[in-house]
Amino acid sequence: MGLIKPLYDDICDMPSGTNNLITDVPGVTVGHCTIRTETLKTGVTAILPQQDNLFLHKLPAAAHVINGFGKSTGLIQINELGSLETPIVLTNTFGVGTGFNALVKYMLNQNKDIGDTTGTVNPVVMECNDGRINDIRAMAITEDHVQRALTGTKTNFAEGAVGAGTGMCCYQLKGGVGSASRQIVVDDKTFMLGALVLSNFGSLPDLEFYGCRIGSKLATFAQSEKASEKGSIIVIIATDLPLDHRQLTRICKRASVGITRTGAFIGNGSGEIALAFSTANRIAHYSDRQLSTKTTISENQIDRLFRATVSVVKESVLSSLLHAETTIDHTGHSHQSFMDAVRDMQKAQPDPEVDVLLEHLGVGKAI
Amino acid sequence: MGLIKPLYDDICDMPSGTNNLITDVPGVTVGHCTIRTETLKTGVTAILPQQDNLFLHKLPAAAHVINGFGKSTGLIQINELGSLETPIVLTNTFGVGTGFNALVKYMLNQNKDIGDTTGTVNPVVMECNDGRINDIRAMAITEDHVQRALTGTKTNFAEGAVGAGTGMCCYQLKGGVGSASRQIVVDDKTFMLGALVLSNFGSLPDLEFYGCRIGSKLATFAQSEKASEKGSIIVIIATDLPLDHRQLTRICKRASVGITRTGAFIGNGSGEIALAFSTANRIAHYSDRQLSTKTTISENQIDRLFRATVSVVKESVLSSLLHAETTIDHTGHSHQSFMDAVRDMQKAQPDPEVDVLLEHLGVGKAI
Amino acid sequence: MGLIKPLYDDICDMPSGTNNLITDVPGVTVGHCTIRTETLKTGVTAILPQQDNLFLHKLPAAAHVINGFGKSTGLIQINELGSLETPIVLTNTFGVGTGFNALVKYMLNQNKDIGDTTGTVNPVVMECNDGRINDIRAMAITEDHVQRALTGTKTNFAEGAVGAGTGMCCYQLKGGVGSASRQIVVDDKTFMLGALVLSNFGSLPDLEFYGCRIGSKLATFAQSEKASEKGSIIVIIATDLPLDHRQLTRICKRASVGITRTGAFIGNGSGEIALAFSTANRIAHYSDRQLSTKTTISENQIDRLFRATVSVVKESVLSSLLHAETTIDHTGHSHQSFMDAVRDMQKAQPDPEVDVLLEHLGVGKAI
Amino acid sequence: MGLIKPLYDDICDMPSGTNNLITDVPGVTVGHCTIRTETLKTGVTAILPQQDNLFLHKLPAAAHVINGFGKSTGLIQINELGSLETPIVLTNTFGVGTGFNALVKYMLNQNKDIGDTTGTVNPVVMECNDGRINDIRAMAITEDHVQRALTGTKTNFAEGAVGAGTGMCCYQLKGGVGSASRQIVVDDKTFMLGALVLSNFGSLPDLEFYGCRIGSKLATFAQSEKASEKGSIIVIIATDLPLDHRQLTRICKRASVGITRTGAFIGNGSGEIALAFSTANRIAHYSDRQLSTKTTISENQIDRLFRATVSVVKESVLSSLLHAETTIDHTGHSHQSFMDAVRDMQKAQPDPEVDVLLEHLGVGKAI
Repeated sequence: MGLIKPLYDDICDMPSGTNNLITDVPGVTVGHCTIRTETLKTGVTAILPQQDNLFLHKLPAAAHVINGFGKSTGLIQINELGSLETPIVLTNTFGVGTGFNALVKYMLNQNKDIGDTTGTVNPVVMECNDGRINDIRAMAITEDHVQRALTGTKTNFAEGAVGAGTGMCCYQLKGGVGSASRQIVVDDKTFMLGALVLSNFGSLPDLEFYGCRIGSKLATFAQSEKASEKGSIIVIIATDLPLDHRQLTRICKRASVGITRTGAFIGNGSGEIALAFSTANRIAHYSDRQLSTKTTISENQIDRLFRATVSVVKESVLSSLLHAETTIDHTGHSHQSFMDAVRDMQKAQPDPEVDVLLEHLGVGKAI
Repeated sequence: MGLIKPLYDDICDMPSGTNNLITDVPGVTVGHCTIRTETLKTGVTAILPQQDNLFLHKLPAAAHVINGFGKSTGLIQINELGSLETPIVLTNTFGVGTGFNALVKYMLNQNKDIGDTTGTVNPVVMECNDGRINDIRAMAITEDHVQRALTGTKTNFAEGAVGAGTGMCCYQLKGGVGSASRQIVVDDKTFMLGALVLSNFGSLPDLEFYGCRIGSKLATFAQSEKASEKGSIIVIIATDLPLDHRQLTRICKRASVGITRTGAFIGNGSGEIALAFSTANRIAHYSDRQLSTKTTISENQIDRLFRATVSVVKESVLSSLLHAETTIDHTGHSHQSFMDAVRDMQKAQPDPEVDVLLEHLGVGKAI
Repeated sequence: MGLIKPLYDDICDMPSGTNNLITDVPGVTVGHCTIRTETLKTGVTAILPQQDNLFLHKLPAAAHVINGFGKSTGLIQINELGSLETPIVLTNTFGVGTGFNALVKYMLNQNKDIGDTTGTVNPVVMECNDGRINDIRAMAITEDHVQRALTGTKTNFAEGAVGAGTGMCCYQLKGGVGSASRQIVVDDKTFMLGALVLSNFGSLPDLEFYGCRIGSKLATFAQSEKASEKGSIIVIIATDLPLDHRQLTRICKRASVGITRTGAFIGNGSGEIALAFSTANRIAHYSDRQLSTKTTISENQIDRLFRATVSVVKESVLSSLLHAETTIDHTGHSHQSFMDAVRDMQKAQPDPEVDVLLEHLGVGKAI
Repeated sequence: MGLIKPLYDDICDMPSGTNNLITDVPGVTVGHCTIRTETLKTGVTAILPQQDNLFLHKLPAAAHVINGFGKSTGLIQINELGSLETPIVLTNTFGVGTGFNALVKYMLNQNKDIGDTTGTVNPVVMECNDGRINDIRAMAITEDHVQRALTGTKTNFAEGAVGAGTGMCCYQLKGGVGSASRQIVVDDKTFMLGALVLSNFGSLPDLEFYGCRIGSKLATFAQSEKASEKGSIIVIIATDLPLDHRQLTRICKRASVGITRTGAFIGNGSGEIALAFSTANRIAHYSDRQLSTKTTISENQIDRLFRATVSVVKESVLSSLLHAETTIDHTGHSHQSFMDAVRDMQKAQPDPEVDVLLEHLGVGKAI
């Protein structure tokens, strides 16, 4: 979905894709498994980069650590070999081991050769700490949850407090999953570039976009203080443009521009990691030819892709804030959604600047 | 000088130092040599990190490549050994070789042992391409220019189109040197963190700060188009806080947040490199003791330094724009200063939003 | 134990520690849990870097990826923050998820604040693929196995086909766990530097040390062919010298010299990763002081540590080969130990050069 | 030339090219300018990666810093953009600035657009410190020397104490330029991979190859002590195989295996840097097509290239030792060649093990 109105920003003038989701990139699907009990608010989100057997037909990929306060798995091998060979599982920090196990079993089930006649497989699991809302010490994620996310993927998926996003906080408001996409025309062909974020970072007073210091206003109203960033953000970028590992690394590096344009500054405790893959130029696990040909895109075109990256990442963060709903945490404390927080404030002390912001967001006046 | 008014931004509430310059860090001095003829608009800026013999008393340092489209020297050794042993010379891209030569001679002159009884020395020269304004093919920088910058350093230095900044463009307006500083209280002691930038990046329509899309307004008024980023920005960060190499690396990484908060997106052609050093915990070239002690700062304090870094880098970029004066390039074309461009536009079509921006900048109404 | 005789090599003349094991570094202990059934030959090895609460008193650490064909967890955060806060668990590739889970529970049990009033924890799990000997698809490692390794650590531990080394192959012979240590005198104080390797790499004909191309001889005798490297090697380096993160990174980089001096060349499929930690200068999780002091060692001393590193890593690899026993794999095929393979060859066709090698190794003539 | 006999080593069984030089890679040529006076023993070596305009037709390239105690220029941009756009200049440490200047002028002369209608250019200059033999403080390299090396390149070039190698020391013996090549058959086509080294590293007692601890013998005989490594080694690798930037990076990393197999351990003061380029898949500076196709090689083939890399780098180091002649340094002290040192020792105290070594080297008995 992304935002209702196009991003109010000059960084990129390309239109979004049909659904304004990462799944606008052909072949990409996303699935959620959401866990919601009194004390548990957590889950799993799975991204299938393509519908074919990914181990046999790997995709060019790159990962970039913006700030390494994080526990993701699989990134080291992606950067050595430049390829992705499993779906991507997002979950909470203490769910990474179970995500790893479930993803291994999912791959073993599809590929009888792994660990037998051929080598092993590199599971990619990424995480944020949802411990402010979820009882993370309960380690509630099971392999079954992960399998459900992996097998339930589709192109039209929900954003906000769902799947891995269920218990996440962003700018001390309710965060979670957000996504957006852009169309890019190259040599008269239309390609797609999309992002999906798991947002769990930021201190409320820092939230600022569209020229409005909304976080500061909300913090003053709610008398909340700057919290240290103990969050994190995971950014997944997909494209059907034929980018190689080095170019995908450069794309990943621009994710931080999109993130920090919503006000954050890459805090010490905020694990920020981006992973990008291309669905073009698949890499055969078993190859009878030693030499082959592939399509490449000229580096001279890459600024447009950088702009699209900044744009979809920023929109994904905002979209995660706008889609997430107010959630009661495991101690009974309420974590307001962006919209609920703004409505409360506007009801108590209407601010015309905030009305302008809401109009740009296409969500009408708050009350 | 930095800006006249404190940065209108919530990222950091620490006050600036006495001069709001990198030289507020005790021991740091800056010198310029400016070359201005009909076709030559270029120069050299030198930063002395301390007043003692730097080869004998090296400083902890780190460099970080945000985007490696650049020709700086010395960064590889800084990151291996974690130390800085020469002043930093900034100049134009084709002046790097001469900067290297002059810096070697400057060091040889001070240290009879270098290249004789001890090893060599690692000259640090950083650059941007001033070829849009300056006839860079003339390779006009001489070793004498570099020596003059090195020997003429002081604490109260000029910003804008001066020294290495003479021919630089920023957001297609006149750029150059900018600087700012912040005071940070740690354990009841006041420390300083300062930045100096050489700004030469950005496409005019992207310039946006304080909630005002001023670049887009100026571009529409002047009918200028988005140029591809062929610029660069060099960021030097100094502090007297006892940061080690790893921590200085983390500081460097936050420089990009300050840069991109003025609207840019780290374009393909924009070489963006940050170098940070600490004047605490000097490292003896000749050491009779194998073990020694040093002061360290807890990582738990580092978010405040990250905020200060973002703040001084952003202010330095803006300060470079505000201090640089309209300059005629080597082909006779005029490159307007930010203030001249804004004044022209406000005269022709007054825009109250721009007046608000100027007020926040403390420069009064444009006309 | 390391080797019976001092390494026959000029790289380092420092004596080994009392046990010639990584546990000669004060505070370090190692535990194994070995799984041996008809089809399962696998296990877990745990390294406790110190006996105090490691989460509260973290250790300076660094990781270095020599070749990133591997699935280890925890390295990214170690390199961002420069610290280690959990024991290190070694196991097979598909045991990483379970190792992660068990290590999280071990830490949660010791620290009630993790995931509650403070942040999460960064479990360090490293692996090699033992699928040539072990039925790795069975995913036989349980959390109980990991807990047993973690709780059964001691200073005098076994080497060879034990713990995580149970199913590993090295140079197509039986590999596994190996360890060695060196004493280093700095400022009249004696410090220790030790290594532990999990060896699972190499092609038999490449094995070559002490000037003897023993692998080539063995391969010719056994008519075995060069296998592609699908192995890996994990190297853990411990010291009580006060090295910081940057220096520990440099130490890690020299691990590859020790590895390749036994004949290998860092093959494509060989995931080679080194992790080093110092038990000096512990880092408090909760710190009431913002500034503190620590001991440092002059970079001028570091060549001696590099030599010691190369020496202990090389000896650890050889020691893993000499201690590992012939093992029947899950398909009934025998993987000979180095000694058994050499004995068979010497019995059939005695080679005086091999006798010299064995004498240097201190293992007497083979028959 | 490389060595007279094939490398006595099992690492690689591919034959060398016609000349056993890096110039066996089609299009690659090498030129020297040698400076030899009483106090000056230095020079320049230039490598032309192809005979066409390199700025217009860039080559895929990568650089890898093994140990960053060095002052090379151009590596940062190579690793960002993955391409090489100038010849490579090798010289002494204090000649880097002049090498930079001369290379810029060489490129400006060939390309009127650089610094005018298009961007700047990234000069690649690499260095070792020849200060033990050469009066490096004299800074004797002139731009004319560099131009002569650049314009005098050919396929059949000299090795040893020539060009940039004139004043270099390797294992405290005379070092300098060495080169070797290997033929690699891929899909029935024969490709070449070649290396050129500038050797200036190592401590005599560490020299050890072909199973003979020759350095230790020579050091004992000559009563010389272990010197700290203040040297460096530069490794250039060329191939006509279609490797991309990531694969070339992996190739570079294997250079250290070749270096350390002659006995060294990557000492603190030894700046060790590798740069690799492919002459296949040239990258157009001006491109009218946004998408294009290129040939790629399967990662499954890369172990053969790793073996070839280790082999040519090791042979290049040995070749530099065998070709370099005894040289009197600027203080009148003699730096013996490997052959002279061995001959002296064998004359005084014949050692049959050394005779075997010499036979393997194909240089006959020493006396």
